[in-house]
Formats: sequence, C-alpha cells, structure tokens
Amino acid sequence: MTQLPADQPPSDPASLYPVSHSLRVRWAEVDAQGVVFNGHYLTYADVCCTEYFRAAGLPQWNVVATADSPEDTLDSYVVRATLDYKSSARFDDLLTLRGRISRLGNSSFTFECRMERAGVLLCTVTAISVNAHQGVSRPLPEHFRAAVLAFQGEG
Amino acid sequence: MTQLPADQPPSDPASLYPVSHSLRVRWAEVDAQGVVFNGHYLTYADVCCTEYFRAAGLPQWNVVATADSPEDTLDSYVVRATLDYKSSARFDDLLTLRGRISRLGNSSFTFECRMERAGVLLCTVTAISVNAHQGVSRPLPEHFRAAVLAFQGEG
Amino acid sequence: MTQLPADQPPSDPASLYPVSHSLRVRWAEVDAQGVVFNGHYLTYADVCCTEYFRAAGLPQWNVVATADSPEDTLDSYVVRATLDYKSSARFDDLLTLRGRISRLGNSSFTFECRMERAGVLLCTVTAISVNAHQGVSRPLPEHFRAAVLAFQGEG
Amino acid sequence: MTQLPADQPPSDPASLYPVSHSLRVRWAEVDAQGVVFNGHYLTYADVCCTEYFRAAGLPQWNVVATADSPEDTLDSYVVRATLDYKSSARFDDLLTLRGRISRLGNSSFTFECRMERAGVLLCTVTAISVNAHQGVSRPLPEHFRAAVLAFQGEG
Repeated sequence: MTQLPADQPPSDPASLYPVSHSLRVRWAEVDAQGVVFNGHYLTYADVCCTEYFRAAGLPQWNVVATADSPEDTLDSYVVRATLDYKSSARFDDLLTLRGRISRLGNSSFTFECRMERAGVLLCTVTAISVNAHQGVSRPLPEHFRAAVLAFQGEG
Repeated sequence: MTQLPADQPPSDPASLYPVSHSLRVRWAEVDAQGVVFNGHYLTYADVCCTEYFRAAGLPQWNVVATADSPEDTLDSYVVRATLDYKSSARFDDLLTLRGRISRLGNSSFTFECRMERAGVLLCTVTAISVNAHQGVSRPLPEHFRAAVLAFQGEG
Repeated sequence: MTQLPADQPPSDPASLYPVSHSLRVRWAEVDAQGVVFNGHYLTYADVCCTEYFRAAGLPQWNVVATADSPEDTLDSYVVRATLDYKSSARFDDLLTLRGRISRLGNSSFTFECRMERAGVLLCTVTAISVNAHQGVSRPLPEHFRAAVLAFQGEG
Repeated sequence: MTQLPADQPPSDPASLYPVSHSLRVRWAEVDAQGVVFNGHYLTYADVCCTEYFRAAGLPQWNVVATADSPEDTLDSYVVRATLDYKSSARFDDLLTLRGRISRLGNSSFTFECRMERAGVLLCTVTAISVNAHQGVSRPLPEHFRAAVLAFQGEG
C-alpha cells in the first residue's frame, strides 16, 4: 500500500488538497429546514472527485467500465463513506470543494473532500472506493496509480 | 447518556431493529453503472427514520422547528454519518430498510439503518443527529427520550 | 396510430386510469418553501410508469436496451413532458399516483400521470416517449403494443 | 399584461436570451441509459432562473417569502412547465443554459430556458410561475416588474 503524505484527519489545512472547485448550492438541494439535505454532500464530493480526475489528467474512469484490456480499466465503487458536518450550507452559497487522494491501496483508494464557504469548514467527506469487475475486486490500474502519484507530487 | 441495548456494529441481526419499511428503487436513483448512486442511501435512511418516528408515535419532529415551548421542540441536524456499502442495489429492487435508535445522548442521538434485499445486507447507515436551535445544541426533549425508550422496550 | 379511449385532458376523472400507486413524500424532496420541488414530480411520474408496466405484465423495458432481436426491444426516451401544478404536495403527504397510456403512435406513446392527495388533484404529468436505438426512432415492439391494448381493455 | 419581445417558441435563437450560464452534468444525474434523467432538466432550468435573477439585480426572491410589506414580496410557484427534449445530455457534458422572461402577466411570469451543448440545442423548458401568498395569487411586485423590463431592455 502506498501511503500518501498527510493521511491525517480531514480537518487538514486546505493547502493539502491539490484540487479545488467552486460549486453553487441549488434551490432543489435545500430542504424545509433551509439547509442542504445531508445526502447531497455525497453528490458534491463526487463532483469534486470528477474534477480531481480531470486535473490529474485521468479519463473519467467510472464511465469506462469496459475496455479492451480489463486490467487497464478502473470501475470503482464506494464501499465506505464518512461525512462530518460542521456547519450547514444554504441556498445560493458558493462553496469551495477541495479534493485529494489520501491513500492508494492495492485495489482501493481513499478520496477526501473538504467543503468550505468563505474559508469556514462546512463538511468533510472521506470515501473509500474499490476497483471491481463483476463484483470482484482487482488491482488499481498501474497508470491510475502513476497518474495520482505524479499529480500529488509523489511520483 | 442512556445506552440502549445492543449498541453493536450495524451488522447486528435484523431482529434488533424495531422498524422495517419497504422501499422500491427508482429509475432516477440508478446511475450509469447500473447501481444506486451512493448518496441516495442517505435519503433511504432518512425515509426509514421518518417511519421510525411514525411507528414510535412521535410527530414528524424535524418539521416542527418552532413550538410554543422550545424545550419541547426537536430540530435535529445530522452531524456525522457513516455508510458501509456491502452490495449494490439496482433498479426496481425491493429493499427492506430496518431502523433503530442505538444511542440517546444529552443533546444527540444515533440512528442506524440496515438495508437488505431478500435478506442480503446491502448497506448500513449510522447517523448521529444533534438537537439544535439557531446553531446551538440543546437537550433532547423529555417526551422524545421517553417515547424512544418506551418504543424500544427500555422505558 | 391507435387512439386509446379518452384522450382527453389530464383532468379526466380518476376512473380512467387503470393503475394507481401510493407514494409518500420524502423529506429530501421538499424545498425551503415547504413544498415538493417542481422537478420531483417527473420522478413521481416515472415511478408510476414503472408500476404501470408491472401491472400490464410488461418487463421493465427501459432497462433492456439491448436484446437479441432489436425489434422486440423498447428503449424509450421522453421527448416532451408537460406538468400542470394545481396544488402543492408537502412533506409526509401520502399521494395517489394514477397512470395510463393515452396514445399509442407508431414509434411513440403518451403516458399520463395524475397525482392526488385525499382525492384532491395536485399535479398532472403528460409525457411523450419515443422508442429509439442509437438516436434513431423505431416502431414500438408489437408485444408492447399488444400488452398495452389488452391491459387497457382495447385488445 | 406586458408582452416582452419575441414571445416565440423556445426554439428562438440564442441571441434572444440575456443570460447564459455554464453547467457541468454530474454523475449522479445520469441514469442507467447513460443520459441525464428527464426530471433533472427542471433543476437545471431552476439554476438558470436563479442566475437570471442575479444578473438582473434581483434578490433571490423565492427565499424571501415574508417581508415587512407583503406587496413587495415575490413568493413564486411554478404552475405549468413544458419540456421539449431534442437530444440527450450525458455525463460530464458542459452545457450552456440560456434564460429569459418572455412574459410578464399581472400575477405570473413565464421563464424560458434553452440548454445547449456546443451550440446544439438539447432541451427547452418553459415554466409559468405565479406569485402567491398562502395559496392566493397576488400581483407581481412593482420593483420585480421594473427590474425585469430594465434588464431585458424594455424599461
């Protein structure tokens, strides 16, 4: 297992996240308490992961579930997610989503997303995804591993 | 803090959950991998919590954010959620959601939801909610605590 | 084109709809105005269409996009939808969704969904779907047409 | 009723829409057919309407349901929506949403949203919203009307 730097709790300073992405809270995401419904933060984290892949020069892996050489395919599924809600996002808030991969295992990786509004931490999501084919886990593709390490300066 | 029985990991047998509720997976909840998007399980858990409240004879608390006597009001916000995904739900699957409150703290409580399809565990959600008013936590209302204890046979 | 009976405006009496299905409004579907966000009614209509297919003995067509004989496959896409909102659904409302197919064209059909709460009409959805393969429309499968006509008593 | 220019069908050229906004399709919005679920286009149109209000210098009205002077409050509800789907949006598509108000009635207005990908029209949404208080319609606030007319060059 490749331990990336700073596998610390997701209250890490923002500087540890190589990717940041702005997201505006939508009306449809706010519930009758006037705050973003708790489940939508997993959608936000997924958006951030997509932007991480884009920034790292990775194709949008989870779409490409079948490739000519299966060993080169990433078809990832979240197996564990933890959300810590510190403060509520509200309608029309402009959030900053920060993302990084904090752990590269043999067949799994951990993605962390830190969500802020004007520098104030609102929520962190830690999601472990496993690469799998027809329900069986398999090693992360080598070029995925290499791209992540290069992007995060550990290559 | 009132420790309810069986505050064990959410892989507890189904018999420990006093509430069960059937839910049919919708087309709009399934993504391009053919499985339910990971964030929707928090919506499912919220549905199960609503049914728990109904079964326990509790009003739908989170709607009633302002009451004549604030100390009698529950206005709960999730502060931490953990999801363990064991297997994927798919379109048109008929799920059984099982719910219980596993911990009653001073101002917070833990709700656990176990989701199955034909007896097979798919996902567990553990969500800690805190009772709060204008951003400040406050004790759980006494009648909420009493209703939960009575419903789960600990009164 | 087969004109089914009663291709009248969707304010038709409930008796014209061969399928009805109960649906409980979820917390996550209600917005900060305290009412169901307008887009979710299309999800509700889709749920009703799934139940219509089940009741009519049809397989869940839109899943089966590839079959051995493509001419037997329904892969339908909504091309036009109209929603008339008469009154608002709110959290925990128990809705009755009523569905019917009001028109069978060569390659398209019209599904109508009427949503009520305690007999009061809340919303109607009229959705035209076309059967298509790789972006090109093609005739509705014969067994789909036959099943609909038989189910609605026009066979 | 104030007829704004060009109340033509929503296939109007893009130049008639004073507001445009970029939106990236999220993974969670794509269904098992690989295309955006039809209901999400109403969310997209709502996002576009929010940006229209921002560009026109209007406050985010639909949040401010109670004001000191009710006659100055806009609390709008969609009463009719029509969607025409021309082509499908897919995961990670970068859409351009174009918005305008095509009609200002006494108590209602019509918002049109045109969604494109690289200049290709994907979907149009036409939504009629009515200003209401406790279920009763009331005139649009004068400053709302004035702001729209000024923004669209009809003041």
